Amino acid sequence: MTTFSMYTASIPVFKQILNSLHAILEKAEAHAAEKKIEPNALLQFRLFPDMLPFTRQIQIACDFAKGAAARLGGQEVPSYADTEVTFEELKARIQKTLAFMDSVPREAIEAGLSRAITTGSGERAKHFEGGHIYLFHYALPHFYFHATTAYDILRHNGLEIGKKDFIGSY
Amino acid sequence: MTTFSMYTASIPVFKQILNSLHAILEKAEAHAAEKKIEPNALLQFRLFPDMLPFTRQIQIACDFAKGAAARLGGQEVPSYADTEVTFEELKARIQKTLAFMDSVPREAIEAGLSRAITTGSGERAKHFEGGHIYLFHYALPHFYFHATTAYDILRHNGLEIGKKDFIGSY
Repeated sequence: MTTFSMYTASIPVFKQILNSLHAILEKAEAHAAEKKIEPNALLQFRLFPDMLPFTRQIQIACDFAKGAAARLGGQEVPSYADTEVTFEELKARIQKTLAFMDSVPREAIEAGLSRAITTGSGERAKHFEGGHIYLFHYALPHFYFHATTAYDILRHNGLEIGKKDFIGSY
Repeated sequence: MTTFSMYTASIPVFKQILNSLHAILEKAEAHAAEKKIEPNALLQFRLFPDMLPFTRQIQIACDFAKGAAARLGGQEVPSYADTEVTFEELKARIQKTLAFMDSVPREAIEAGLSRAITTGSGERAKHFEGGHIYLFHYALPHFYFHATTAYDILRHNGLEIGKKDFIGSY
């Protein structure tokens, strides 16, 4: 039986949804090619003018996943330049994020339970008394917010996907 | 320091986001009144014709929250009729869900860790070897999916809310 721990509550959960997003990106890419849709019509689509476009939603979802793995594991958060402009590049960013998450030792993640965590700096700094507070009340809600919004953008644009594609498997 | 447990990984997390949705519903209601928007223009709005409308997104988010509290706690899942047709009624459904979650004893939720959980029935049945698998890989992803989509629907319709309203506080 799988244990209940900081690791099992975090890494496999982020990976489940990141793998879903990767598969959804493949579907979006194939759909755009088939229907002769200019990729940027999807990649740069926003649900409202002052919302972030699809590409940023994927980038930020990746950022919360890598941020969680790094912070829980007591490592520096790696910095990824936000330079992706194609579906292929967004898939690569997800793969890079997945690989980074796997590179953080499980024992370090487990030890994150009692790690005090600070995100941001200056006035925007947020302090969490333990890794589980950071994970459950901050990292995962933000991650799901961007991951679901990415899904909603494609769904709104007619991509034939359903909730099963988002939930994926683990 | 807050402990890390089945209870702290579940009930306060659902409550954080349900309280956010409750506050967002108040803003949507006030916005509709102020702009003389027919409430159903928002309540029945879908991001795509074969997606569920706003009202259903809220109802289903509540269902995953009450389902998680009941199943982790080893109780029957209470059945709520999907009869809400106003912002006021949707807020009441959230309040009812919050009250139900608080009615399940914390010790019962904690014991959910080692509870085998089955959702659905027949061909659609899903089996989980322990409450944490059910919570992290099924109940929370579904919950966030519907909660975020509800947010996205209102945002797409011009309601002036931001991610902070979604994340809320705990």
